Amino acid sequence: MARKAGIIGGGVIGGGWAARFLLNGWDVAVFDPDPEAPRKVGEVIANARRALPALSDGPMPPEGKLSFASTITEAVEGADYIQESVSERLDLKHRVFAQIQQVAPGTPIGSSTSGFKPSELQQNAANPATIFVAHPFNPVYLLPLAEIVPSAKSDPALIDSAKETLREIGMFPLHIRKEIDAHIADRFLEAVWREALWLVKDGIATTEEIDEAIRMGFGLRWGQMGLFETYRIAGGEAGMKHFMAQFGPCLTWPWTKLMDVPEFNDELVDLIAGQSDAQSGHHSIRELERIRDQNLIGFLRVLKERNWGAGKVLLDHDARRRQAMPAPSPDHAQPMEMARMHVLPGWIDYNGHMTESRYLFAASETSDAFLRHIGADIAYVGTGFSYYTAETHIMHLGEAKLGDALSGTVQVIHADEKRLHIFIRILKGDEAVATLEQMLLHVDMKAGKTCAAPPAILDRLLPIAKAHAALPKPEAAGRHVGQKK
Amino acid sequence: MARKAGIIGGGVIGGGWAARFLLNGWDVAVFDPDPEAPRKVGEVIANARRALPALSDGPMPPEGKLSFASTITEAVEGADYIQESVSERLDLKHRVFAQIQQVAPGTPIGSSTSGFKPSELQQNAANPATIFVAHPFNPVYLLPLAEIVPSAKSDPALIDSAKETLREIGMFPLHIRKEIDAHIADRFLEAVWREALWLVKDGIATTEEIDEAIRMGFGLRWGQMGLFETYRIAGGEAGMKHFMAQFGPCLTWPWTKLMDVPEFNDELVDLIAGQSDAQSGHHSIRELERIRDQNLIGFLRVLKERNWGAGKVLLDHDARRRQAMPAPSPDHAQPMEMARMHVLPGWIDYNGHMTESRYLFAASETSDAFLRHIGADIAYVGTGFSYYTAETHIMHLGEAKLGDALSGTVQVIHADEKRLHIFIRILKGDEAVATLEQMLLHVDMKAGKTCAAPPAILDRLLPIAKAHAALPKPEAAGRHVGQKK
Repeated sequence: MARKAGIIGGGVIGGGWAARFLLNGWDVAVFDPDPEAPRKVGEVIANARRALPALSDGPMPPEGKLSFASTITEAVEGADYIQESVSERLDLKHRVFAQIQQVAPGTPIGSSTSGFKPSELQQNAANPATIFVAHPFNPVYLLPLAEIVPSAKSDPALIDSAKETLREIGMFPLHIRKEIDAHIADRFLEAVWREALWLVKDGIATTEEIDEAIRMGFGLRWGQMGLFETYRIAGGEAGMKHFMAQFGPCLTWPWTKLMDVPEFNDELVDLIAGQSDAQSGHHSIRELERIRDQNLIGFLRVLKERNWGAGKVLLDHDARRRQAMPAPSPDHAQPMEMARMHVLPGWIDYNGHMTESRYLFAASETSDAFLRHIGADIAYVGTGFSYYTAETHIMHLGEAKLGDALSGTVQVIHADEKRLHIFIRILKGDEAVATLEQMLLHVDMKAGKTCAAPPAILDRLLPIAKAHAALPKPEAAGRHVGQKK
Repeated sequence: MARKAGIIGGGVIGGGWAARFLLNGWDVAVFDPDPEAPRKVGEVIANARRALPALSDGPMPPEGKLSFASTITEAVEGADYIQESVSERLDLKHRVFAQIQQVAPGTPIGSSTSGFKPSELQQNAANPATIFVAHPFNPVYLLPLAEIVPSAKSDPALIDSAKETLREIGMFPLHIRKEIDAHIADRFLEAVWREALWLVKDGIATTEEIDEAIRMGFGLRWGQMGLFETYRIAGGEAGMKHFMAQFGPCLTWPWTKLMDVPEFNDELVDLIAGQSDAQSGHHSIRELERIRDQNLIGFLRVLKERNWGAGKVLLDHDARRRQAMPAPSPDHAQPMEMARMHVLPGWIDYNGHMTESRYLFAASETSDAFLRHIGADIAYVGTGFSYYTAETHIMHLGEAKLGDALSGTVQVIHADEKRLHIFIRILKGDEAVATLEQMLLHVDMKAGKTCAAPPAILDRLLPIAKAHAALPKPEAAGRHVGQKK
């Protein structure tokens, strides 16, 4: 049975939490007294549906059920996890926690607060032990970070289980051991924000110039390494000590205005809002959200390819999901389904269609899975042997578009010691959008020539070939380019 | 004749400048009294050679000549641009500028200074007008940002020409109109650095936890939008004013310790260096550099695909280079060379070879260029017509590896009103690593069926087809998978 998340507060952040749980198969009940909340949450979930599946290399689990509760009680009753994302007012948060704990006194309650310490959130609570900070970053459905801050009154076992819940929905819970105002990340954001306000106020730079100063330089560095690892490199082989010796003294130079707070008045608001309009006003907020999401998907997939930083979180999440799924036991009497995938943003051409070479990519994913199935996996390649593709024939039969779910099947046409002749269908539902006929050869990579596959592989391959010999030969097999039908 | 850059100071930053100029075809003369400078600069250039070509979709220009000068005079004599990257000591910089201006009084001198204002750099100079701040970010050969800060004494025409020089080597010169200590970006870096030192010193977080707090969340955002555009989105449809109204009051909350400077002593250095070792010590600095560079290449290419942020700079740079190159006038009596490319990091599989689907990708780049050549370009697709690939046959004949320079040629086998039957060779030097036979059909995209191409296209296509009819038919044309040779 699906588990249930109670989401209190349905703004951009609450909506992002709802989307993450929902798309990961949890039932979600949202409470927000704002009559606009269903629309707002719906918009965030629509964004998430366009974006989140693109991070995964496996099929998404079936979505959970989304409901809007008319009371806090209804939203949290029977919930396995509760997330509070109401306005940043301590008295309001206290009232919400009190209502929650009347019906769900033992359930973990994460708070999205940017600034309050857990000990402040826990004040006067019926059960302080279940209330902690779980501070996410917008867009919540894409960025993995959640700062988890317990206090001395927190229940360590409950915190562990909450962190596990967040990992299950693809997040990176960063456990912060000592509570502090604004946790960690927002302290940095606040420091930069204040300095940026000074620079605009003093006419040194516009909002656009400040954004360029960030995203053309250190912003790119910080998406993949943080502050210290970047500076460690800057120190060269001499490392961190050398860097600190070089830049330590600057600390006391007049490089920041942060000794002081700019006066926050209408003039400053107008100045900044006006510059921001000039910079970004030609895009609607919806457009900016989509641009941001596609950029973030791109960054995250780059990191995933390299098993680094946030990409490691995605790989772990995929592996966790694969483990939770029943192992496939392909039926040898049919073409075997070996791969499932979604058409990702990077696969699309200027026509809005899946680009030509991605059909061959999809086929490679399919044949790689088949090779793993017969024992020619990465470990086998490590021993110096592999199957190489010698020849391919592709028929383009239909069009796949962004987000389409595709599957790839393998039919063995012929196999012997050295040769593996297969026919791959790339399917959208039951319709083949492309078929690919391939001749693979078993090679000794060091010698650079073909050789017989070992019994361990042939013992798995040949029975499949034998079973598939009974299947009708695909019409497109043996066809050459331009042949009459 | 190649232009000359004089590089004074051969550390990581000076080496990065040298690499950027050199790989963009400039001759480079480096002066640094450190006997280790040639080795250090050589290592940075080696990193750049592995990384910078991966950002471009065209061939790199021939590298310039690198030399190490034994005096400043020798390094800057005849230079078209001079970049100073010596230690951050004002008296030293003044001495360097004085020596430069004895022989090159009118040449632009950019300073890599992180903190000094241009008016400080210009003090006592023979010609203050040519000295300005050109502050880059490490790795200089990948990150586009250079903060350009002139003073009232600067020559505006010289600043414009220096900005143009930086654009020519692929950078993004950000013109800062009012001078200020530490310019813009380093003020933010300094603010974050100080706050981070406090957090480590007070035992709130380790260097690793701080890095995770950055790169799992807002760091990813800042690589593609900066501070203000990100917050504009956070404000929702109500925009920047709404965001500021919501978060303005926090400015006076105790969210940062920045009212104060942590005492910089050995204890703090040891604490941070020790944590940094625990975090990153299992990678050498060289490894970290390569990991960082590959991540940055990935991010930059994502942005390039989307024509956004730093990616826009790369696209502009490619276009600028294409324009500077003589237009190809393919010889119709031969298979026509339509594309040149380098094997990029993302094209490589776990065997270290170019992955199968990238051969089809290289062929698409080639056939797309051919289609543009006959007038079926993006504007034509915009009118609702296009050529679609119906069928492809691939022969894998060799192996391409990371960094290999490939070219793609097109031979027309047959063309009529609707059909375009071509043979593509993907060549490494003179050797074909793959050949691809393709049938393309001219389609009415709205109607979803084939139709005759218009005279404007046929008038360009059919003469090529006629000329190519005299070429020998490729052996692999008309071949089906598994056919005996």
